Amino acid sequence: MSERLFASYWLETPLDPAAAAAAMAGEQSTGTFVAVPGETPEIHERHAARVEHIRPLAAVDAPPLPGARGGSATERPRYNRAEVELSWPIENLGPSLTTLMATIAGNLFELSQLSGLRLRDIRLPPAFAAAYPGPQFGVAGTRRLAGVEEDRPLIGTIIKPSVGLSPAATAALVRELCEAGIDFIKDDELQADGPHCPFDARVEAVMAVINEHAERTGKKVMFAFNVTGELDAMLRHHDTVLAHGGTCIMVSLLACGPVGFVALRRHAALPIHAHRNGWGYLSRHPALGFDYVAWQKLWRLAGADHMHVNGMVNKFSEDDASVIRSAKACLSPMFAPPARGYEVMPVFSSGQWAGTAFPTFAALGSIDLIFAAGGGIVAHPDGPRAGVASIRQAWAAAQAGERLEDAARTYPELARAVAAFG
Amino acid sequence: MSERLFASYWLETPLDPAAAAAAMAGEQSTGTFVAVPGETPEIHERHAARVEHIRPLAAVDAPPLPGARGGSATERPRYNRAEVELSWPIENLGPSLTTLMATIAGNLFELSQLSGLRLRDIRLPPAFAAAYPGPQFGVAGTRRLAGVEEDRPLIGTIIKPSVGLSPAATAALVRELCEAGIDFIKDDELQADGPHCPFDARVEAVMAVINEHAERTGKKVMFAFNVTGELDAMLRHHDTVLAHGGTCIMVSLLACGPVGFVALRRHAALPIHAHRNGWGYLSRHPALGFDYVAWQKLWRLAGADHMHVNGMVNKFSEDDASVIRSAKACLSPMFAPPARGYEVMPVFSSGQWAGTAFPTFAALGSIDLIFAAGGGIVAHPDGPRAGVASIRQAWAAAQAGERLEDAARTYPELARAVAAFG
Repeated sequence: MSERLFASYWLETPLDPAAAAAAMAGEQSTGTFVAVPGETPEIHERHAARVEHIRPLAAVDAPPLPGARGGSATERPRYNRAEVELSWPIENLGPSLTTLMATIAGNLFELSQLSGLRLRDIRLPPAFAAAYPGPQFGVAGTRRLAGVEEDRPLIGTIIKPSVGLSPAATAALVRELCEAGIDFIKDDELQADGPHCPFDARVEAVMAVINEHAERTGKKVMFAFNVTGELDAMLRHHDTVLAHGGTCIMVSLLACGPVGFVALRRHAALPIHAHRNGWGYLSRHPALGFDYVAWQKLWRLAGADHMHVNGMVNKFSEDDASVIRSAKACLSPMFAPPARGYEVMPVFSSGQWAGTAFPTFAALGSIDLIFAAGGGIVAHPDGPRAGVASIRQAWAAAQAGERLEDAARTYPELARAVAAFG
Repeated sequence: MSERLFASYWLETPLDPAAAAAAMAGEQSTGTFVAVPGETPEIHERHAARVEHIRPLAAVDAPPLPGARGGSATERPRYNRAEVELSWPIENLGPSLTTLMATIAGNLFELSQLSGLRLRDIRLPPAFAAAYPGPQFGVAGTRRLAGVEEDRPLIGTIIKPSVGLSPAATAALVRELCEAGIDFIKDDELQADGPHCPFDARVEAVMAVINEHAERTGKKVMFAFNVTGELDAMLRHHDTVLAHGGTCIMVSLLACGPVGFVALRRHAALPIHAHRNGWGYLSRHPALGFDYVAWQKLWRLAGADHMHVNGMVNKFSEDDASVIRSAKACLSPMFAPPARGYEVMPVFSSGQWAGTAFPTFAALGSIDLIFAAGGGIVAHPDGPRAGVASIRQAWAAAQAGERLEDAARTYPELARAVAAFG
């Protein structure tokens, strides 16, 4: 085999970046801290990771992360920044998602040769596409199941309060949201199978409402039931949702992990709504962890259909440019033809309301997304129906190139949303 | 139910720490960014997370993490640091490891009210011990299977080079290590089931050597085979190791994730050696992510038997005090009687050799550990047998209160190790 996989990093080091990159390549393929007898030239030739290129960036005086060693002992140390790409022969690991993670993101972030390391992107050979089925529904399958024509995003919301509602109270809220014209509803990630709202009872109560509404109106609202839990329960809960006519399940990616997720995907007959709660601990410091562009590819390979990307003007610390970069990554192919591209539907949420539709469409240039608003719908001063209407109005106006201020003069629900949340 | 679970954090905020802690409690229980109709006083009373206490620390001028908002608009902002403890009623989630993770470490690290957040420790009610079986072997079971009496640590090593050896070449190295008197050997985390060293062939070749050695000498060396992969393969590989008389399996925790790990644990009849590769991205910045004291409890609950803690004077960026804090945490009970304590065996590795036994014993005050040396054994100038001998000598001397320099005068293998690695 001659296929290789590639990972690009931003790094900072008190050493020459070439020396730091070489240490990374050694640590993650054939090396240890002293030469060992078995590391023959043949093994090195066949299996060593390769430094593909190094692009130096500006150096700085103070390192972002503690614990780096090396560099000049006499002068004040300088910390050199660079973009680096490494590659590995696929023969080292085979097309394994788990060994891939140990290889590209294992014992690297602790290296004392580094004072900063961020995985920016990965490129995988087609063998990975052959080994992992990827998203089963993606954008088109989700639109079909949700019955939303391709002229607007799916408009969604979250069950709030996150915890405390009984199955009956959840179903009552779902009824109100169905009547309001919603396309998509999700459980909160804090709500899975807790004692006050058991999973099976919640599915039964919620699906009775959704099915009754579908029979009456022809529109089956998509509800993402949070199945995150032990694997047996996740598979059973998936089957329960399917048996009740449900059309989506939700998983908290970091609480589940890749192995459980892939096992669920191989069993699933429903789209998997992937929630990234905890993402902040992987990304909040810019000199450590993961860019979303790299990280989301791992989960698309594992089979996610919807990936959370935060929202524009959100309540968290992430800026808008980063949110849009994430969403565009979700909509971009991760394999070249003839392999499928494994595109997934980005989910915009956190502090969303009608007004944030405008910058979202302007920056993304696509309507293939789930636009999820919590308070922006249920706390609309005229109720959830007006909340949903305001968001539909906002997207129609944004797609038509109108400005929020002008559209608000046309649509009363949008005007009231601006008054409440603007 | 009135049981609560507790999580303690170090935080930094441009706000009053009490306001930041309240935002955390709201985000992770009943709140959203605007009040919603369903958040009744009854739900708040029963389900809201509680701020248990706040201990202010010194404030600073510059925040460690970007993206924080709030604080004074006119004066230069100050960033207030504090230790905070939150608690939740178990009724919010039930004794679920995955919902626990979404609750204590979900959408928190991105909050714009914070400029730093670190999960320091957790305390779980006994309901979790009833729901999860925890370590199946721990310290005593591992000693029994490895045949190492309780007068010294297990002395271990890692197959190196990490990648490139065929099953036959791996087995040849294992034969040399068995002859050298090793107690424990592990696969490298980069080696799982790659095309040049398939899992089944490796187990067959390695266990033939280990079994032959055991029949001849009465000592069965413990080999931790890296089963990390898809769940079906992990279970099958576990069974293969068991069928060949093997006594341990290894899992890369972050590549596997909690759900796959618990599923494996519930199936397993062998100790699970838990590898923490990738831990750096969760911990390298002191103002973000996890203290190991908190993190290792999640994996002990999930059923790990051995937990990697890095090593003293290691090749990574972590300092010795942190390593010892981690190891002591592994050996400390995480539940009070009558529940079991779920103690696990800490694994010291990374740059270890005979000399590092002395500071390790001095700081830890225990011999209940796996002391794993790669180059420190196989690169000993007189070969692996001398490498293992030097480490046994070092531990005997350290336990007897001798100093390295004095012991090196007694033991020639130790003296040669000092000359090579000291």
